[in-house]
Parts: sequence; C-alpha cells; structure tokens
Amino acid sequence: MRVQGSHLRTIRETEDQRGVMVIDQTLLPDRLEQVRLLSLADCARAITDMVVRGAPLIGVTAAYGLALGLRDDPSDAGMERARRTLLATRPTAVNLRWAVDRVAAVARERPPYERAGTAWREAGRLAEDDVAVCEAIGRHGATLLRGIPRRGDHLEVLTHCNAGWLATVDWGTALAPVYALHNAGVPVHVWVSETRPRNQGLLTAWELGQHGIPHTLIVDNAAGHLLQWGRADVCVTGADRVTSSGDVCNKIGTYLKALAAREAGVPFFAAVPSSTIDWSTPLGSAIPIEERAAVEVDQTGELEVFNPGFDVTPALLVRGLITERGVCEASPGGLARLFPERAA
Amino acid sequence: MRVQGSHLRTIRETEDQRGVMVIDQTLLPDRLEQVRLLSLADCARAITDMVVRGAPLIGVTAAYGLALGLRDDPSDAGMERARRTLLATRPTAVNLRWAVDRVAAVARERPPYERAGTAWREAGRLAEDDVAVCEAIGRHGATLLRGIPRRGDHLEVLTHCNAGWLATVDWGTALAPVYALHNAGVPVHVWVSETRPRNQGLLTAWELGQHGIPHTLIVDNAAGHLLQWGRADVCVTGADRVTSSGDVCNKIGTYLKALAAREAGVPFFAAVPSSTIDWSTPLGSAIPIEERAAVEVDQTGELEVFNPGFDVTPALLVRGLITERGVCEASPGGLARLFPERAA
Repeated sequence: MRVQGSHLRTIRETEDQRGVMVIDQTLLPDRLEQVRLLSLADCARAITDMVVRGAPLIGVTAAYGLALGLRDDPSDAGMERARRTLLATRPTAVNLRWAVDRVAAVARERPPYERAGTAWREAGRLAEDDVAVCEAIGRHGATLLRGIPRRGDHLEVLTHCNAGWLATVDWGTALAPVYALHNAGVPVHVWVSETRPRNQGLLTAWELGQHGIPHTLIVDNAAGHLLQWGRADVCVTGADRVTSSGDVCNKIGTYLKALAAREAGVPFFAAVPSSTIDWSTPLGSAIPIEERAAVEVDQTGELEVFNPGFDVTPALLVRGLITERGVCEASPGGLARLFPERAA
Repeated sequence: MRVQGSHLRTIRETEDQRGVMVIDQTLLPDRLEQVRLLSLADCARAITDMVVRGAPLIGVTAAYGLALGLRDDPSDAGMERARRTLLATRPTAVNLRWAVDRVAAVARERPPYERAGTAWREAGRLAEDDVAVCEAIGRHGATLLRGIPRRGDHLEVLTHCNAGWLATVDWGTALAPVYALHNAGVPVHVWVSETRPRNQGLLTAWELGQHGIPHTLIVDNAAGHLLQWGRADVCVTGADRVTSSGDVCNKIGTYLKALAAREAGVPFFAAVPSSTIDWSTPLGSAIPIEERAAVEVDQTGELEVFNPGFDVTPALLVRGLITERGVCEASPGGLARLFPERAA
C-alpha cells in the first residue's frame, strides 16, 4: 500500500536480518512510526500490547517470533517454550496458532543448528503468502461487490474494526475488495464504525484517507440506524476465527451489526484467509473469547468493567465468506465445496 | 435521591425565585456542581449544551425557561418567540414540546402582567408531577420486574444511556423500577452500556454507585455478546419519544440492543411518562432524528462524521411500555387501553 508516496508494509525484515520492523499501531492515526522487534519476547509483547493487531498480521509476527526464539534456543524444549509463549499472547485469533504451527513443523524436521534459519525463511514465505492471499480475497470480493445492488452512485460499504492492510501484511481482508474496486474506478464509500474500546475504526479511516477513498466515521451505536435507513448496501468485516460450520468470531460489536444487517435485508460478509478457518471447531460458542483489561474501557480504574474483545456472529446471519479461493456460503457444505481437502 | 447524604434534585427553584439551580451534567461523574439558570437564554443553552439532558428533565427545564422568558416579555409575540427558542433547542424529545405547550396554554389565559407568575407556578407543578409520575413508573416497573425469571441470584438488568434520576427531576424512568426493587431488598445488578458518543452510561454508573446498586460497565459493542451469553434477564431503557403505535425513539444504539434482546429471548421494555408519548405520530420513521456535532465523535475535526443522536426501535421489538398508569403492550391497542382519553 502506498502511504505518503512510499510503499509500506506492516511488517518487514530488517536489512541485517536481525529482526523485523513493524508499524506501531498504538500510535496511529496520530503518528506513523516503526519499531524493531529483535527477539521472541519483543514479538510476544508487540502482539499482547496490540502494537501489531489483526489476525493475519498477528500470525506473521508470531511466525517471526518463533524464528527469533529458535536463534536463542533451537532445542525441542526451546521451540516448545517459544510456541507456548506465543500462543498465550492472545487466545481468540486462530491464525496465530496456524502460523506458529506451520513454522514449527518445518523447523522440527531440521537439526537444531538449522532450525532458526529454516524458521526465518518459512516466516518470510508466510508473509509473502499473506500478501498473495489478501490480493486474491480482494479480487474475489470485488467481483462479488460489483454484483451488489447500489442505492446511490457509490457502493455503500459498512465495516467494523480494522480489517485493512494494517491488519495484514498488505491489502487487508475486508478492505481488500474495497481497494480493488476503488483501483478499478468503481465509486465506493465506506461507513467506518469507531470500534470501542480501542477505536480501530480510526485506523480504518486513516488507511482509507491515505488512499483517497471516501469514508464517514460513526459511533458503534449508529450502525443500526444507518442500516435501518437504507444507507449501507453491504456489510463486510474481517474475522479472527471462522468455525467449520461458518460461525464468525470477530471484534466485539460485529454481531450487533450482523443482526441489524439481516433486519434491513443488507447482506453481511466476512472476508477471511483460509488460515482463519478453525477446522477443528464447529460451533462458535466453543471459541475462547479474550477478556481484556478494564482500563481499556474505564480509565479511572474505579468501575467494575466487563470487556470481551470478540463476539460470535452465527453462520445464519452471514451471507457468505470471501476467501482466497472464492466466495462460499457460511455453512459446512459451503466451506467443504471450497476446501474439499479440509472437510475430509 | 440521596447523594452523599443530602437529598438532591436535578432541578430546583432558587430561594429567591429568580431562577432555577440545575446539576451541570457535563461535569459528572468527575464533579457534582450546580449552576444557576436565570433567563430563557440560560435555559435554552443548558438544554442545547446538555448541561441538562433526559427527556423529562428537558421538559421541566423548558417549562421554567418559558416562565423566565415571560418575565422579560409577557406579550403574545414574546411568548411565541420564547416558545420557538425552546422548541429549537433539541428536536427529538417530545416532552419538550409537551411541557412548553402546557405552560403556554395556562399562561395564555391570563393577562400579560400575570403570565410570568402563572407560568412559574405551572412549571413548578410540572416538576412535582414529574416526580410523582416517575415514582409510579418505579412502582409498576418493580412489580413487572419481580415477575421476570432470573438466571442467577440477582435480577440482571441491561440498560442504555441514562434514564435515571439525572434524566428526570427525581427517581428516573428506566432506573426507577431498579431503585424500587433495590429499596425493597430485591438483589439487582445493572449492566451499563457506555453510550458513545457522550458516555451517558457513566452518569448511570455514578447514580447506581451513589445508591449502592451493583453494576458493571460495558462498551456498547458488548451488549450483543452479553445477551447472547444469557447474562441479562431483561432490558429496560427510557425513551425520548414513543409513537401512538408503540415505536420507541431513544438514544442512538437502543435499537441494536433491542434486536439482540429479541434474538436472545430477553424481554425489552421502555419506561416512559405519558408525556413522552406522541399521540399525533403513529410511525417512528416520521420522528425527526437530531444530528449532533461531529466533534462529539472526532475531536480532531479532520474526519467526515455522521452523528445521529437517536434511533427508532420498532414496536414489534418492544415487549411493553412501563408508564405511570401501568404496563401496556407497545401497540395502538395497548396504549389505547391505558390511555383511552387520548386514543379517541
């Protein structure tokens, strides 16, 4: 993605290969700064503190984290410790486990002295794959969105949280089709919901602004009214985990938007790389929902707070899933048709 | 209501009758301060700037505002100017028009030199009526809530915005039944939604804290998850306007909660004085929805913002209306049974 004239990715290897540079997303949209992650501990902390966020980017960061951990201790025990440290950072996004396990599996086949290098190269491939996957999601999603009836000149898209290029290595998931349409000259306008408590909507607004895509910020509360009044043609979000039956676990508040979309007859889609699909979990109710610190909601620290980070939108409310292989129904059958090798 | 040992109302006449004292709600929950409103302009500004808020309290403040306006100009033209100034402050709450018209009707029957005094006394009666009405809402609502099946030890109530005593002269609407139950020794716990963009949930948390009622703050986004997981037994909100067919216009975000409540099989009630019922408007879609300043949502002033202050929950999603005369169905028939004189 082009930011102020230069091509930027959320994560890239440093020139000397000693670690990775990531955009510090806790500073956006105020400041665009990059920080260096040079160790397993750096990577784990960056994930926990949401310096990096978004399921795909969390996965890639964890992959590099494992590789960096193997530089310090390439033994089986060291690898297992590194793996556990990374898996404990955030419980909900399944890409994290998928990425760590993919890198660990490749490294495990090598003798200890080759593991760190092998893991590093695998993390790099994983990052490149993520770009290609997101680009494919953009392509399939754009075809889908071209077919959505528009009420006005612009296609009116409602999104939640940030599932743009900041949430991935490049392109994004939910926003990839928006970028693809915009680049093809189709007029798109995006309704951006603030996404309390951490306001990732401001990241989405920043991204869209950088790319000249018209957008309007709303508070999360306003999404129902917006849909009820026919001001959105389609809802598209990302996801942190999709079950094998099509339940969509995503940022807290997604479920409310999906309910209001159904009520308004507006189709709701989740855009996800296949690494976000949890083939071993059929029911959304089985997904562990991360509870985050009270201070995210109440800065005084005086109030009792309940702060779940995610919610589950049942498959019945989801019109379809946009993946790198195409669009499918959010159902066991729909997923099995697109991913026959996993449904076995 | 008792605040730190003293009985406090949101609005009261000054000793010298030169004006009214109101709690400055823009400073809560940080500071409890009162300000003096000595003129029509003071009252209008207090409503627009949300120094006072909540449909019933807006009505009472406007009633005093009209009386103060008549002190300066008691002519028919002066009264009409004052009336228009007050009606222009906020468009959605119907209590405002109801209160101003009630005071104007009484004043209009008197010669100009008696109008200010007559209006002042009528505003005072209106304030006392509001207290009695809210107490009755509390009584009827408590009876209703005692019959709601509880999943745990406490009755788990989800509310939105602030419809407590701060939104009225005393007692509140949605919270009046909660106070009544608590005073009767029934264990109640309230889920308080933050209510972006103005965070009136913090007023609710403050009120409940003052009265020792257990409560937990959530972001607005979390209400769907909470209901889906069976953690609320009932939803109760106030309203800014209820149509003659039972559509409920209330703080932005109410509709999303009502959708999630229906989905979870949790009953949703609105607690309203009859002054909130707009007998001349059958359909919620005809209610003017106030759009407030972008700066409430985006303090940088750089983003395009859409900031509707209210939304409409269709009557079909509302299990019932709690009024000073009792509980009725949110339907033309339900309202007609309780208010036969208005349904004619």
